[in-house]
Amino acid sequence: MKWDQRLASRMASLAPSRAVTEILKLAERPDIISFSGGLPDPAVFLTERIRECSDRIMSREMAAALNYGPNPGYTPLREWVASHMKQIEGVDSTVEDVLVTSGGLEALHLVALALLDPGDTVLVGAPTYLAALHVFRAHQTRIVSVPVDHQGLDPEALESILSKLVGQGVHPRLIYVIPSFQNPSGVTLPLSRRERLLEICRKADLPIVEDHAYAALRYRGDDLPALKAIDPDRVIFLHTFSKIFGPGVRLGWICADSGLISNLGLCKLGTDQCPNTFTQRLVLECARDGIIEAQVDRSVALYSRKLRVILGELEKRLPPSVTWTRPEGGFYTWLELPQGFDTPALLERALEDEKVAFVAGPPFFADNSGERFLRLCFSFLAEELIPEGVERLGRVISSTAQGRKPGHSKQA
Amino acid sequence: MKWDQRLASRMASLAPSRAVTEILKLAERPDIISFSGGLPDPAVFLTERIRECSDRIMSREMAAALNYGPNPGYTPLREWVASHMKQIEGVDSTVEDVLVTSGGLEALHLVALALLDPGDTVLVGAPTYLAALHVFRAHQTRIVSVPVDHQGLDPEALESILSKLVGQGVHPRLIYVIPSFQNPSGVTLPLSRRERLLEICRKADLPIVEDHAYAALRYRGDDLPALKAIDPDRVIFLHTFSKIFGPGVRLGWICADSGLISNLGLCKLGTDQCPNTFTQRLVLECARDGIIEAQVDRSVALYSRKLRVILGELEKRLPPSVTWTRPEGGFYTWLELPQGFDTPALLERALEDEKVAFVAGPPFFADNSGERFLRLCFSFLAEELIPEGVERLGRVISSTAQGRKPGHSKQA
Repeated sequence: MKWDQRLASRMASLAPSRAVTEILKLAERPDIISFSGGLPDPAVFLTERIRECSDRIMSREMAAALNYGPNPGYTPLREWVASHMKQIEGVDSTVEDVLVTSGGLEALHLVALALLDPGDTVLVGAPTYLAALHVFRAHQTRIVSVPVDHQGLDPEALESILSKLVGQGVHPRLIYVIPSFQNPSGVTLPLSRRERLLEICRKADLPIVEDHAYAALRYRGDDLPALKAIDPDRVIFLHTFSKIFGPGVRLGWICADSGLISNLGLCKLGTDQCPNTFTQRLVLECARDGIIEAQVDRSVALYSRKLRVILGELEKRLPPSVTWTRPEGGFYTWLELPQGFDTPALLERALEDEKVAFVAGPPFFADNSGERFLRLCFSFLAEELIPEGVERLGRVISSTAQGRKPGHSKQA
Repeated sequence: MKWDQRLASRMASLAPSRAVTEILKLAERPDIISFSGGLPDPAVFLTERIRECSDRIMSREMAAALNYGPNPGYTPLREWVASHMKQIEGVDSTVEDVLVTSGGLEALHLVALALLDPGDTVLVGAPTYLAALHVFRAHQTRIVSVPVDHQGLDPEALESILSKLVGQGVHPRLIYVIPSFQNPSGVTLPLSRRERLLEICRKADLPIVEDHAYAALRYRGDDLPALKAIDPDRVIFLHTFSKIFGPGVRLGWICADSGLISNLGLCKLGTDQCPNTFTQRLVLECARDGIIEAQVDRSVALYSRKLRVILGELEKRLPPSVTWTRPEGGFYTWLELPQGFDTPALLERALEDEKVAFVAGPPFFADNSGERFLRLCFSFLAEELIPEGVERLGRVISSTAQGRKPGHSKQA
């Protein structure tokens, strides 16, 4: 059977993700110092305490943990989420406003299933989370980008894009935003921009999908309210246990209007029916035990140290023509290279000549632009490897900038 | 926000699933004897041994089990699947032919994402698995039904439907089949029909999606080869750990052409990125420990007893005008009631007057017909409750058949 001749039309648009996947695989080679994958450092996992929680689940409720659970999630976990939404995020919600999902990305996939038809227009940042672009492409939407600067999504640019779209008779269905410690740029929307963004969206009758993945990981500066806390009605709030607990449990949640949640649950009946029963109970037990809170504290301590190290090293080892973001939290810093650089080509050389990996800019842009940008993830790499990694990166950038064949700088 | 005015067009077609969900919720009331949900009996779970396996994972590889894993699944589990495919199913395959999924239904969702565009035609049995109909509806396909009789999908009917479709210029994209112990009917395609089905599909250049969910649970009769074993090239083989281990781990797999698997993995990057890391390792540890094999043996022993009980009780307690299937395996028997019966209405009375639950026929038919049919699941209900449950069912059927108001039979 010639399966490649039988593929759905959406598959043609997913080629960028295929390329990224191939490159991420290369970055996993043990001889590579990798700033690429956005993984938590396993050092933050309180494995002994998690093991005790797991033992309790196993002895107390194993039979239930091995069977099917409710489609919208295990009710006590939904209750925990609702109370977390109140206490941590300042959002009033009930169990009916909460759907447990198989991670933050499934949350977005479900939103797309429930709200988007092929040809619909969605708005995203430029740059934005590459897997979000994948989801919107898989749903065959038209993706319109809004510039992101050092303070996040630019509201004035959004306003003018919206007015142009409306002038063309196009009414976007939603805007996807990562307000805090954005992936990939690390930047954060200040309060004034949050309020302005909401004002613009209210005027344009535009729903907001808020991705809260990194918001708990703040290393300096003051906490900011989630968009959901400012305008609960307009915002579909997505969160994940991946960064506050561990990605391996594949759990996240959506907090939104209860009627919409019921439709999102209906969509989930056609993806994986119900979230993982065992890990839902495990996560709840760990949350009640204080492990999530403790791991967030450990993450903040560890990653803020790594962030200091990487920012110091970048200062020391990169040519002055390169600039980067100084995030207040999250996993990433985002580098801008001078005109003429092409980071996908740079990455090939970095892997080959210097054994260092990053993610090149283009996959974070809907139009595959951004060839002067690259993302460095500082959360996963061992702290003591960061200086060596940045040194290698500096070498490959410098040698490329000087027009020399990369690798020669080592002999200079 | 009026979210119900912002829903994607697919949502309108998902109403049948919403109704089923509501009714399944009712069936969970503790005062109801329920033949409805297709759950394994927790008595088959070897909880102590599973706990030991979990302890080993926790002490040996916890940090990895809590982090992201590879998109197509944990490689050692894919290796186990490939060897299982060879040893148990007689299918030669390698790791590259295997994608681990978040359950059997996600497997079908991924197939739909990779192969189906809105408006495409798919073929299914009448009746068929109701969640499969949900998936095909969510992808806005045209669903064409092929009659299922006591020997499963009727190949001659398929052939004439295909020739009619081709005459209309319609080329279906795939046929979805559950060859063994079909959900909901419990019927099994004999070898001759399997071969004939494959012959017809070869002639029509039609891919087959084979759902193998229940095939390991055979209580009598001889094993039959999977369609995949007869024609590996044409068949996309879906399996789940839900019935051979436990649904709570939310794991299944697809075995198919490696090029197609790579495209299905690409689709999975936009659903939940990777399967549950923790439960993948748990399931593999349990498989290596012999727990899966042992649980299948226990399931066969327990469910074959329950099947004997329910068939005996149906014989004893139902009016002679009612007929039912005598499955050789699986979870279900399928009842046909005389002309004039309407099982959705019967279910309402059964719940109210007799506190007994089943699933009415219509949700198993693409055209929502099948109002004279109902599904009884015998796997989950405690053996000692089966006689009482069938007696209640018999009462509500008899009272309805006699045109009396239900409930009166109790005073007769």
